[in-house]
Formats: sequence, C-alpha cells, structure tokens
Amino acid sequence: MNLRDTLKINGAGHLEIGGIDTVDLCRQYGTPLYALDYAYIKKVATAFGETLRKQYGKGAVAFASKAFSATAVYKLISDLGLFSDVVSKGEMYTALKGGMAAEKLVMHGNNKQDYEIDYAVMNGIGYIVVDSTDEPEIIDNAAKKYGVIQKVLVRLNPGVEAHTHHLVQTAREDSKFGFSIKSGDADTAIKRLFDYKNIRFSGIHCHIGSQIFDRNAFGLAAHIMTDYICKLRDEFGITTDVLNLGGGFGVHYTDKDPLYTAEDYAGYVDFIAEAVNRNVAEKKIPKPFLIIEPGRSLIAESGITLYTVGTVKDIKGIKKYYAIDGGMFENPRYALYRSEYSAIVANKAGEPFGETVTLTGKCCESGDMIAVDIPLQKAVRGDIVAVFSTGAYNYSMSSHYNGNLTPPVVMVKDGKSDYIIKPESYEDFVKNHNIPDFI
Amino acid sequence: MNLRDTLKINGAGHLEIGGIDTVDLCRQYGTPLYALDYAYIKKVATAFGETLRKQYGKGAVAFASKAFSATAVYKLISDLGLFSDVVSKGEMYTALKGGMAAEKLVMHGNNKQDYEIDYAVMNGIGYIVVDSTDEPEIIDNAAKKYGVIQKVLVRLNPGVEAHTHHLVQTAREDSKFGFSIKSGDADTAIKRLFDYKNIRFSGIHCHIGSQIFDRNAFGLAAHIMTDYICKLRDEFGITTDVLNLGGGFGVHYTDKDPLYTAEDYAGYVDFIAEAVNRNVAEKKIPKPFLIIEPGRSLIAESGITLYTVGTVKDIKGIKKYYAIDGGMFENPRYALYRSEYSAIVANKAGEPFGETVTLTGKCCESGDMIAVDIPLQKAVRGDIVAVFSTGAYNYSMSSHYNGNLTPPVVMVKDGKSDYIIKPESYEDFVKNHNIPDFI
Repeated sequence: MNLRDTLKINGAGHLEIGGIDTVDLCRQYGTPLYALDYAYIKKVATAFGETLRKQYGKGAVAFASKAFSATAVYKLISDLGLFSDVVSKGEMYTALKGGMAAEKLVMHGNNKQDYEIDYAVMNGIGYIVVDSTDEPEIIDNAAKKYGVIQKVLVRLNPGVEAHTHHLVQTAREDSKFGFSIKSGDADTAIKRLFDYKNIRFSGIHCHIGSQIFDRNAFGLAAHIMTDYICKLRDEFGITTDVLNLGGGFGVHYTDKDPLYTAEDYAGYVDFIAEAVNRNVAEKKIPKPFLIIEPGRSLIAESGITLYTVGTVKDIKGIKKYYAIDGGMFENPRYALYRSEYSAIVANKAGEPFGETVTLTGKCCESGDMIAVDIPLQKAVRGDIVAVFSTGAYNYSMSSHYNGNLTPPVVMVKDGKSDYIIKPESYEDFVKNHNIPDFI
Repeated sequence: MNLRDTLKINGAGHLEIGGIDTVDLCRQYGTPLYALDYAYIKKVATAFGETLRKQYGKGAVAFASKAFSATAVYKLISDLGLFSDVVSKGEMYTALKGGMAAEKLVMHGNNKQDYEIDYAVMNGIGYIVVDSTDEPEIIDNAAKKYGVIQKVLVRLNPGVEAHTHHLVQTAREDSKFGFSIKSGDADTAIKRLFDYKNIRFSGIHCHIGSQIFDRNAFGLAAHIMTDYICKLRDEFGITTDVLNLGGGFGVHYTDKDPLYTAEDYAGYVDFIAEAVNRNVAEKKIPKPFLIIEPGRSLIAESGITLYTVGTVKDIKGIKKYYAIDGGMFENPRYALYRSEYSAIVANKAGEPFGETVTLTGKCCESGDMIAVDIPLQKAVRGDIVAVFSTGAYNYSMSSHYNGNLTPPVVMVKDGKSDYIIKPESYEDFVKNHNIPDFI
C-alpha cells in the first residue's frame, strides 16, 4: 500500500487525497472516478527537472503522453518547464490545446502516418524521432512544404534489455522499433539523413524498457549511446547535439515494488546525468543536450481510482469477489498484462486488512479483473474501494467495452477539485452512429 | 483464409466484400476501416431464426450486444425478428435508438448498477437475468416505482466447461457469474424471488463458454438445465417458462478453426432444439420458450478490417514486420488473448502467399500486434491489408490509446456502402478535457 504524501487516512478513518476525503469526492462526482493528485505530479516533475538542471545543465525531462494525454496535464507539466513526447496527431493536438510549446514536443512512433508528420512539421514540433527508412523522405517533403528545416533524432536499438515484464520490453533486436547499432542499420539510417536538405540530424534516442528499477541499465545505455556518438564523429564526421536516453522508471503498484520518493527519482536522474557527464568527459565529445523520459513515473502514483462495491460473491474455498462499478473498460491492465494493483476500502481505511479478495469489474468477461487475491478490509455493497497507482495507462487505455461510459477524471489540489476530463453523456455515446438507408 | 459468400477476389485481383472492391472502399473512406457485410449477418441470423422456429417453435435467437453494439446492427437484427442481450445502460440505450423493442431485450451482468436496472425497468425490458442475491430487491423496487411486474431469469452455473481458451471460460464453479446448481445456491436464489411482489420468475439462463465448436457441450447443458426445471417443479412447485441456453458458437479466425457456413450454424440450432425437445418430452415438462444466444457467430465473420501498410521492417532471421495504420487501439484481441487472425493483401489478393509476416500496429508498445507470423502476399508501403473475422469484439473494444481516433465502420450491401459508425473528429476527441483554474 502506498500512502505517500497527500494520500493519508484522515480523522474519519477515510482515505484522503490532495486534502480531500475520497468519500466526499465520490459523493460529489460519483463512481467510478479517477482522481489525480496535483501535488504529487508537481513534486516528482520538479525533482526530475531540477536534478537534471543541477547535475547536468542543458537538457530536458519529457513527459510520456501515452501514459495520460489530457490538456490539464500538459498545462501543468509545461508550466513546470517539462518537454513531452507524443506518438500520434491526437496526442500532439491535445498537447497543443493544453498549451505545450510545439518546440518542446518530441514525436515517436514506429509507423507515423503521413498526415501525422505533416501536422507535426506544420506546427513546428521540436524533434521527430526517425524510426524507419521511409520516414526521412516524408519528413523532408513536409518540411519543404512548410519551408522549414526539421530537426530529427534517430531511434537506435542499443541492445540493452532491462529486466521488466517481457511484454513491455522494446529494445531487443526483435523489435518493431528503431535501428540496430550492432547490425550497422543505425549507421546507414543516419548517413542517409544528410541526403535530405530539409532535415537536420540532431541526435539519437533509445528506449530500453519500462517499469525499470535497476538504474545500471541506464548507465549501460549511456555508455553505449555515447560510444556511438564517438563513432558517428570519428567514422563519419557527424556531430550529435541531442542524446535522448528514453526512460521507463519503475513505479509502485504493490508492495513487491520498491516505493520511490521524489528524492529517489531525483537519484535516478542524478545517476544518469553523472553517467553521461563521465562518458562525455572520458570520450572527449561535446556535451549533448540530454533528454530523459521518465515515463509513467511522472504520473502513475499521482492517481487513484475510486469505485463503489456492488455484488459481493464468496465462493467458499475458492475466491471472494468484490465486484466494483468499473472494470477492464477503464483499467485493462490486468486483462492485458496480468498487472498487479493494491487497494484499500476508502471509507474503512483505518480498519485492518482482514480479507483476501479479488476485485472484479462489471464486464461480461471472466478476465475482467482489477486485482486478484489482494489483502483488503472487509467490505459490503456501497463501500468505496480505492485502487492505487492508476494515474498512468488507465484513462489513456480506456474503452467503451460492454457499452460503459469512460469515467471522468478529477484533479485535486490543496482541498480543491475539478474535472480534467468531464463525464460523457449517452447522447454523445451514439452521436456517430448511423443507420444507412439500405438497412 | 475465409473467402466465403460475398468475400471474393474480383477480376482486378482485389478483395471484394458485399459487391464492392475493398480498394475502392479504402479510397472512399480511408484506412483503418472496419467493413461489415450486410448479407452475411442477414444470412446467418436468418438461418439461426428459421431453424429455431422450424425445429422448436416458440423461442428466440438473441444477438450479443457486447460483440458489436451499433444502432444499425440493432435495426438489422430487429427487422429479422431477433432478440438481443444487453449488459449495460449504454448497450440498452443504443439498442433502443436502433429500434429494438424493449421487450425483446435481455439484460445480463454480474454487477448491474441501480441506475441500469432502473433504466431497464422504466423502458420495459423483456427480461433481467438475476446474477446476485442483491439484485432482486433492486429490481423489485424499480418495478414498484414504475408500477410493473418485471420478468426475470436467473443465471445458473451448470458446471459445464466447454473447451475454449481459459480466459473466455465463464461457467466454472470459480466464476463471478451466476448461481451454482450443485451447491444449492441456485435453489435458494430462485425461491427467494417469490418474496418480491413486483418480480415474476420466468426462467433460467446459463452460459457455458465462448468460441465453442463442440455442440455436445450444448446437449449436456440442455440436459442439466431441463433436469433443473424438473427439480424446480418437483421439489418446489415452481414453473419455468423460459430456458435461455446462452451460446458462444465458434467462428473462423484462422484455418485452425472449422469454417462454418450458415447451414452449419443452422445445424447447431437444430441440434440444440432437438436436445431440448427430447429432454422436455422425456421429462414430461411443459415446453419452455427457448432463447439461444449464438454470440459472436452472428457478426464476427461479417467483418473485415482494412489497413494501409506503412513501415516494413525485415529483421533478418527473426521477423518481418508489416506495420499497419491500426493496432491494439482498434483490435486489442492479440494483446489481450493472443488471439489469432488471418489476412490478405487486398490489392494483391490474386497473388500467392509468399511471405511469413507479423502485422504490427502503430502503438508504442511491443505487444501491439494484430497477427504474428502469418502467411501473406509480399507487400510494400501503401498496399492494403484486410484482416478477416473482425466483426465482433473489435470496434466494441476499441480505445483511444496512443491518442488514436477510433476508425469508422461501414456496412456494405449489394455494391452500396454507408457509415454505420461515422469518423471521429479531433475536436470531439478533446471535447471533455478541462483545465481547472487552480492549475
């Protein structure tokens, strides 16, 4: 259980977030409800940003849009001086609506569409990360069309494999992403960029995995990537201005995971900055602009999801189910990855855990679970359950499966709360439905 | 590969559906695009309905809303005389908008919300399937409020386990659904219903699995459920008017699956009708109104998804990736279940399969696959790929993950096509976003 910072048990024995009793939040907004803690995001983002500035100097921390793309989140992180990645026109559109400066955006993607590259270049995106041999020409054409020189990074596979769940590995040689350093594909891809007049090669990017707790993986990546910067200089006379080391810092889902504070995360950045500093000094290369992408760690633990308990089903000797009013339509991570979560009965938070229960959703599907066989307080119909660390990859992965509306999202700050994603209506739900004449 | 009925290779060597060249469809509507074949749905629905009428008499075939809930689909199946299940207010709302008569709807769900039951009763739903001990009181209160007597079925666990993927099993004793016959829970649940003045017990329901090809599973379920009807009569003097045997008939995804025609499906219904007829005759019980729910088989094979090939990445000796402009945001079934699909290069459909390729999406996630190591024609950027049997659990499970818009859906009939789900706009995409004053 992760009762950090503003997550606390108040005098009424209720879970509180951002200075607000979660029972009051549910009364005001209904359930299911995602709630994000402003203070947590600000604290972690600040720790990342300040450490990078202090320990390295020129560089930027980039938010991972795919974890939670919402205008309010972009506004918040942009005010804190962060960059953001985007992986689609939709994310970039949302980032711009949220007030992010286009030059602070980095576009990733293994299969960017022409219309996405066009939109990115038209709006003056900071960097496009080239991920295939087809992209340079598409980018060059767009840049010509808008009369600009587009800065690009190139995604490399450094061959570093961080120890995380197999399904969230993305840097092995068998990957749909990037160019292998080892095979020479990276050399070819980078050299070819110089054939295009409206492209400027700015630097290199890698992403070695996600939910990583072993900082040595980043040290190794820094070593390999700076080696490669040397190679580009020595063999091809190419200057590298930007080193984007990706990210994927781990977060706490259950007590099996380390519980990192903002200071611990700052230590990550410190470690990476130090590794890059050491490598550039030893290898005598100009210090690149360093981008790190801490991924879900900027937002995951800021979020909780609040549910109302409905059906309680005790199958003696097998399982005790608490069915909540959410499910795989608003948190598909158990269904997708068998991800684990911890939870608390928010209106009985002061009571000890006395049960082992499975939180199941309201979808008509047996895999519709949120958390299986977890310790929890005894609950009855009408109680409120809070699931922790749902700030990342919950709302952003939500669907309307089983005809359920996507729950709204509120942000809480110093006892105040407001929607950052407003509720859907049933009218909107069928707005795009159409019955052709021929039916 | 499933080139049935209107799916054919035309003179141009292109895939055709419903009398339309898929290349033309893509030109008109763009990609990714879901396309549903009117003729297929009509043919299969008619085969199911007519066989039940002919071989059994009083009964109904019910569509599975969760496979594809769209107003146009409800209009079509309702015109063909079918019933439909619904598992949420959202599905019922959509069904009513599509012109389904409320009395032809059956509401399922392990954790129906009070507002969903209220909505269902208010609108005169045919049957609510009781799935927990809490529900009767909620239904009774709603029925009192609206001055009606609500008919209910009770979901039973007959203990029949059909051989399908573990994750889509729903009738084992460890299930969040229903009441076990064996444990006696079913007896208790049904007897308690008679305490409620505004509820009428109408019958029983079971659901023994999905993607089932072994019809004997249904024979066994018919046997157990009719035995239970006898027990209700003999031990408790309770009359059962309705027997809902659920469904979950298998469909063809790849050549590992049997390829059933409408006649084969009719044979399923024939087999079930015969099993129930035999059982009621032998056991001398009044013939119940028989509901069968053929699940995805009514719609899965009617659908194809059309994609444009983007990045082609050949990792020698490991994998050849064709990245398409869709992905887990519009078909999450590989990511969720490692489901298999077959495909064809629609604009080269006449050419032989010469490649083994992995269709991967455009999402920034390694698990973002549609089909792994499948045979396919050689394709280049810009070619059109059609994936088969995507009519069920694709659009209905779609999300906006990675900031992608949900693709539109067209229906095709005799050379005509029209949207049944219109495209989304980016304006709508951020319509519910809000930046609180305190950020």
